[in-house]
Amino acid sequence: MTTSLRIGLAGLGTVGIGTYKILAGQADMLRDRCGRPLEVVAVSARDKSKDRGVDLSDVRWADSVHAMARDPDLDVVVEMIGGADGDAYDLVRDALDHGKHVVTANKALIATHGVELARRAEEKSLTLAYEAAVAGGIPIIKSLREGLVANKVSRIIGILNGTSNYILTTMEETKRPFEDVLSEAQALGYAEADPTFDIDGTDAAHKLSILTSIAFGAEVAFDAVRCEGIEQISPLDFQYAAEFGYRIKLLAIAEEGEGGLLQFVHPTFVPAETPMADIDGVYNAVVVEGDAVGRTVYEGRGAGEGPTASAIVADIADVARGQAQPVFLTPVAKLQPYRQGDFDARRGKFYLRLSVKDRPGVIAQISRILADRDVSIESILQKGTEADGAVVVVLMTHQSSEKAIADALAGIEALDDVMQPSCRIRVMEL
Amino acid sequence: MTTSLRIGLAGLGTVGIGTYKILAGQADMLRDRCGRPLEVVAVSARDKSKDRGVDLSDVRWADSVHAMARDPDLDVVVEMIGGADGDAYDLVRDALDHGKHVVTANKALIATHGVELARRAEEKSLTLAYEAAVAGGIPIIKSLREGLVANKVSRIIGILNGTSNYILTTMEETKRPFEDVLSEAQALGYAEADPTFDIDGTDAAHKLSILTSIAFGAEVAFDAVRCEGIEQISPLDFQYAAEFGYRIKLLAIAEEGEGGLLQFVHPTFVPAETPMADIDGVYNAVVVEGDAVGRTVYEGRGAGEGPTASAIVADIADVARGQAQPVFLTPVAKLQPYRQGDFDARRGKFYLRLSVKDRPGVIAQISRILADRDVSIESILQKGTEADGAVVVVLMTHQSSEKAIADALAGIEALDDVMQPSCRIRVMEL
Repeated sequence: MTTSLRIGLAGLGTVGIGTYKILAGQADMLRDRCGRPLEVVAVSARDKSKDRGVDLSDVRWADSVHAMARDPDLDVVVEMIGGADGDAYDLVRDALDHGKHVVTANKALIATHGVELARRAEEKSLTLAYEAAVAGGIPIIKSLREGLVANKVSRIIGILNGTSNYILTTMEETKRPFEDVLSEAQALGYAEADPTFDIDGTDAAHKLSILTSIAFGAEVAFDAVRCEGIEQISPLDFQYAAEFGYRIKLLAIAEEGEGGLLQFVHPTFVPAETPMADIDGVYNAVVVEGDAVGRTVYEGRGAGEGPTASAIVADIADVARGQAQPVFLTPVAKLQPYRQGDFDARRGKFYLRLSVKDRPGVIAQISRILADRDVSIESILQKGTEADGAVVVVLMTHQSSEKAIADALAGIEALDDVMQPSCRIRVMEL
Repeated sequence: MTTSLRIGLAGLGTVGIGTYKILAGQADMLRDRCGRPLEVVAVSARDKSKDRGVDLSDVRWADSVHAMARDPDLDVVVEMIGGADGDAYDLVRDALDHGKHVVTANKALIATHGVELARRAEEKSLTLAYEAAVAGGIPIIKSLREGLVANKVSRIIGILNGTSNYILTTMEETKRPFEDVLSEAQALGYAEADPTFDIDGTDAAHKLSILTSIAFGAEVAFDAVRCEGIEQISPLDFQYAAEFGYRIKLLAIAEEGEGGLLQFVHPTFVPAETPMADIDGVYNAVVVEGDAVGRTVYEGRGAGEGPTASAIVADIADVARGQAQPVFLTPVAKLQPYRQGDFDARRGKFYLRLSVKDRPGVIAQISRILADRDVSIESILQKGTEADGAVVVVLMTHQSSEKAIADALAGIEALDDVMQPSCRIRVMEL
């Protein structure tokens, strides 16, 4: 029989145990499919005594990530610890330096240190694989890196964070406010105790920056993502979105802009008749537009034990079958330095929700400010008066630049009769 | 510099020329991405003198597919001739026998001779790749064979034929009859002069049988697909579908049934709120349900120069990077013989459209026949009388077996007052 692929699993949380279960439970199937056995020979985790519901008595315990990285009996190390630095980073760096292939589920790590780690991997012709880092079980990294290899990509649009998508979907269905739905999501285990990165767009930005690097052949630039979260969305916005024919999704977008690349994460009005509008709950989706293939779409569960383990085992299988290749498709030595495009020049339609005092002349003042910035209005809605004497005014603009809208909003918010921070949501066009 | 991958292109129709354009036009990008140049060194086609709009003066002409298969200067041969037998088959078989990797876009060939050709390829550790054979530019073969390698697949549902999907979409939009829309599709180039295989489901069945083999580890069994085309669909059916909350799609389905596998191609009522319902025009989509990953969905253009060439070049790139692996995921020696499940036992809901004479007691007779077969009715619609004295009666059943419905329909069609062949459409449930 051909030699086993000897695997070390670092991190035995839900994903680590899920990965172990597949490797152990489907050993025969995977051996046939990969042409050699996939064998877990070592694991490491903080607490050795914890009952994880699986029998690990035949598996060696590595005392530390350093021990695992140096273990001469391992061909591949799977990092499932998490975090951009610390143990996760040390393990991946040291494992590569000691000639081991690495599979990781860690988007923060790849978004932060991906280029440096890729250089280490490529120097030694080692695999650094991270399918599980983006969009859970959807094979989007493989599709971009291999399936669409013939394409110049012009745009990527993703729903990349299941927690925020779950919250938006639930807010829309139940008409309940953000804080309420977030608490419930935490109770149900769909949001973490500290949900900051899911809610403020950071998690989606990590994932987007990885996809951008592969698609556009540029160095990963997580810091270059312009990021807005979903905290400011109110139940009212879903109501207005529906009236205009839209649903609200947190989109991650990478595209060619003026002078370079643009990366955005922001809540978006998505036309109800497009496939992205139908991605509900914890599902993720990615649209890739390529010059040869046209528009392709990939959907599936964005997180959880099964989907994440599915992606990790796929990466391990690639290692077993000897499929080494450049980490970001373009070899690191040929990746372009990231060139930042002009955010301000980007054009699109905008939805603006304002809360104003119900006095004569307010709408005239707002309209004047918008007109002065060449922002023209497609529709305006004003409905009833609130208990506190405020009136909600909702505007949909025609195509305008980011700069014009930002300037106009600053002017509008400075008006005496405009009562609280306004809400601006970008509108996706067909 | 690393050695070039030396490529022979057989067949210079739209897809052949599209493939040449990408290989020549994106040579630098592909060299970087694959780690070596991809070089077209030979081509073959029936007519050497034809102007194809590209400069082939630097490329050697092979006088026949036999010459190309034996050419010692080629590493990989790309078959874009088409047809299950003849030149296409001879080329692929001979090329493998002469130690060349093969890339093909030919679903009929793989559906008919795939197992035998895979055996030849695997005996010599050669690649036989066919991403372009199924769902155009969507990397569904790669996703199934590599991205979802950790999964036991329980079901595949596809919209795999762009021509029939275009016709259905247009019939729905324009309320025009099948023959009309087909003629227009032919005039526009969306349907071939002989559209039989697109219309009667054969093309979708070819593609489904390939996906089934990969997903379920069974030998390709194209003949085992129970196939119905879209010829019997009338504009009325779209109207009723909409009333019940459905759209009509030609689905290809592979699943575990009683006693073995079931493969179907048939027009289907698809719930309007599911993603598959939104796949319009020439787009294809595939749903894969795996035990670890859950439900994943893949969408994109199902045919055409760019998408097909995108898939072919991806396969060539895999060859360049040395990614050989079993043709159908499970090595041919371990593929299970195809085990046919029991079609008759399959259960589901059915839509029945009947044309009956407007006489007392007809509905009673029909209801009696259905009741005798234990088919219970969810809804029944009868609207107005046609000019010829016929009445259209539409029924939606509860869950029933294929056998019960077939028996009941035979009984109903034998009634004196039932006027013409009835229409039966299966209903997909959520």
